[in-house]
Amino acid sequence: MKSVILPEQEKAYHLALKTALESGFNILQAGGTSLDAVVAAVECLEDSPLFNAGRGAVFTNDGKHEMDAAVMVGNSRAAGAVASVTGVRNPIRLARAVMEHSEHVFLAGAGAEQFARNHAIAFEPEDYFFTRQRYDQWQEAMREGVVQLDHRDDKKFGTVGAVALDTTGNIAAATSTGGMTNKRYGRIGDSPVIGAGTWADNATCAVSCTGHGEYFIRAVAAYDVACLMEYKGMTLRQACETVVMHKLKPVGGEGGLIAVDRHGIPVLIFNSEGMYRGWQTSPGAPNTAIYGD
Amino acid sequence: MKSVILPEQEKAYHLALKTALESGFNILQAGGTSLDAVVAAVECLEDSPLFNAGRGAVFTNDGKHEMDAAVMVGNSRAAGAVASVTGVRNPIRLARAVMEHSEHVFLAGAGAEQFARNHAIAFEPEDYFFTRQRYDQWQEAMREGVVQLDHRDDKKFGTVGAVALDTTGNIAAATSTGGMTNKRYGRIGDSPVIGAGTWADNATCAVSCTGHGEYFIRAVAAYDVACLMEYKGMTLRQACETVVMHKLKPVGGEGGLIAVDRHGIPVLIFNSEGMYRGWQTSPGAPNTAIYGD
Repeated sequence: MKSVILPEQEKAYHLALKTALESGFNILQAGGTSLDAVVAAVECLEDSPLFNAGRGAVFTNDGKHEMDAAVMVGNSRAAGAVASVTGVRNPIRLARAVMEHSEHVFLAGAGAEQFARNHAIAFEPEDYFFTRQRYDQWQEAMREGVVQLDHRDDKKFGTVGAVALDTTGNIAAATSTGGMTNKRYGRIGDSPVIGAGTWADNATCAVSCTGHGEYFIRAVAAYDVACLMEYKGMTLRQACETVVMHKLKPVGGEGGLIAVDRHGIPVLIFNSEGMYRGWQTSPGAPNTAIYGD
Repeated sequence: MKSVILPEQEKAYHLALKTALESGFNILQAGGTSLDAVVAAVECLEDSPLFNAGRGAVFTNDGKHEMDAAVMVGNSRAAGAVASVTGVRNPIRLARAVMEHSEHVFLAGAGAEQFARNHAIAFEPEDYFFTRQRYDQWQEAMREGVVQLDHRDDKKFGTVGAVALDTTGNIAAATSTGGMTNKRYGRIGDSPVIGAGTWADNATCAVSCTGHGEYFIRAVAAYDVACLMEYKGMTLRQACETVVMHKLKPVGGEGGLIAVDRHGIPVLIFNSEGMYRGWQTSPGAPNTAIYGD
C-alpha cells in the first residue's frame, strides 16, 4: 500500500528532487568538485519545505528546530559536522565551514552557532522554519507523548543527502536533517556522526544515510559499507545490501542510503516502504523515484 | 626523553590506575558484569583529579568544563553517549543512563543535562572541577591563543577509558574525557562518537581510544579495529597495530587505545610517548604502566 501521499504532493517531491539533482549535476558537468556538487544539492533540499532538513526541519519537544549535518570528501577524508544547531538556514554550509575553517571535525549547539556567526553563515528567524505539516506532526506527537521518526505516516524518511563523483575522480558525501519529531534532551542522530550517517573515502565509496538514527549509529552503517568493500572485497552494491538488508533490517533499523564509488555507479537502497531519491549519470537523464521498483 | 613527570607524580598515577583496576576487577571477580566493571573503573578515574575526565577535566575557552563520555555493551551492542555536558560529576554514569533509560543513543549539551536531572545523576558545583594544573594549562593556552590536547607537555593523553570481559563472555567499553584545553564552539571529540572512540561487539572486541580526536573520528578508529578482525581475519593485536601504528600514526593521528576480545587478552597500544594504563587478567596481578616498554 502506498500510503498517504497525494498525486500533487508526489509531483512536488519529484520536482524538488530534480531541481536538487540538476544543481549538483550542473556543477559536475562544468568540471566542478564533488564537494561543491553535494553541498549545492543538499542546500536545494534544505531550502525546500518538503524535506526534514533546513526550512522543513521537524519540531523538537519545545517547538524549536535542532538540525544536524555533515560533509566529507574522499581524497583527503576531510570532514565537518554540526549537531543541534538552531536558526541556521543551511546547516550543510556550516558543516562545510567547520571542515574548511576550523581545526575540528564536530561542533554542537550554541558553540557551533557562534562559529557560524564568526564565519558569516546565514541565519533565519524562527518562522522561516515553520511548515504546517511539521507543526501538525509535532502536535500529534505531543498529544500521544511520543518521539517519532519524521516520516511516520508516509513511511519515507525526510533526512536529505547527496553523494557525487567528479571529473577528477574525487567523491564526496553530504547529509542534513532535522532529526526526530518531538525529540528532546539534545538528541543527536546518525547524520552528523562520521562513519554512521556520512562517509567518503576515494578508496571505497561515499555514503549518506537516512533512517532510524540510533540503529545507524550502533551499526556504524556508512563506514561498514566501506569496510565490506575494502576488507571483504565486496562491490558497492553488495556492501550496501549487506548493511541495509541483512544487518539493519533484521534488528529493526529502518532506513536506507545512497552511495557512489569511484566508478560512478550509484546505489540507492532502502528497507522502508520508500525513499525519496534521484540520480543522474553522465551521459543520462535525471531520474527520480519514491517507492521501491 | 621521559618529559616533565616527577617521581611522586608518577607514583600517584600508578596508584590511581591501580585503584581503578581494582574497582573494576573486584566486580568481575564477584561475577559482576563487564558493564558494571568498566563504568566503575571509569568513575574512579573521573573522580581523580589526575586525569582529563570528570573532576580533572580541562578548561574550555570560557573557563568551563565540557565533558564527553560513551559506553557500549558487546552482546546487545546497546550504547549510550553524551557530549558537551557541564557540571555532571560522572559523565560515564550519564552515558549509561542514556543507554538504559532513553530511546536514544547520543544526547548533548543542555538537553543531556536535563536528562541527567530527570534521572537523578549527581551534579557538582564549578569549583569541584578546579585543578591547578588544568587551570595553568588553560591560562597558557589562552596566552598563546591555541587549542591544545590535554597532554601537551607530558605527551600522555588524559582521556580515560576501560574495557572488560566478564565471566558470561560479555565485553564492554567505556570512555570519558574533558576534551581539549581551551576548546570552544562546542567541539566534540571522538570519545562519545560510537565507532570512533568507543566500540563493543562480542563478535570482535571492545575498544576505548585516547588521542587527537579529530583523527580518530575521521578514521572511525574503534570500529575499524573490529572490522579488521571480522572482515580480514586479523587478531585483536594485529588489528590494533594496523589502526594505531599504520593508519593513524602516518597521518599525524597521535594517540592510542585499549582493547579486549572475548578471549580476554588485553591489548594496550599507543603511538605517543606514553599512555597511562593498567590491566589485569584472571589469574594475575594488577599491572600499571606509563611509557612504552
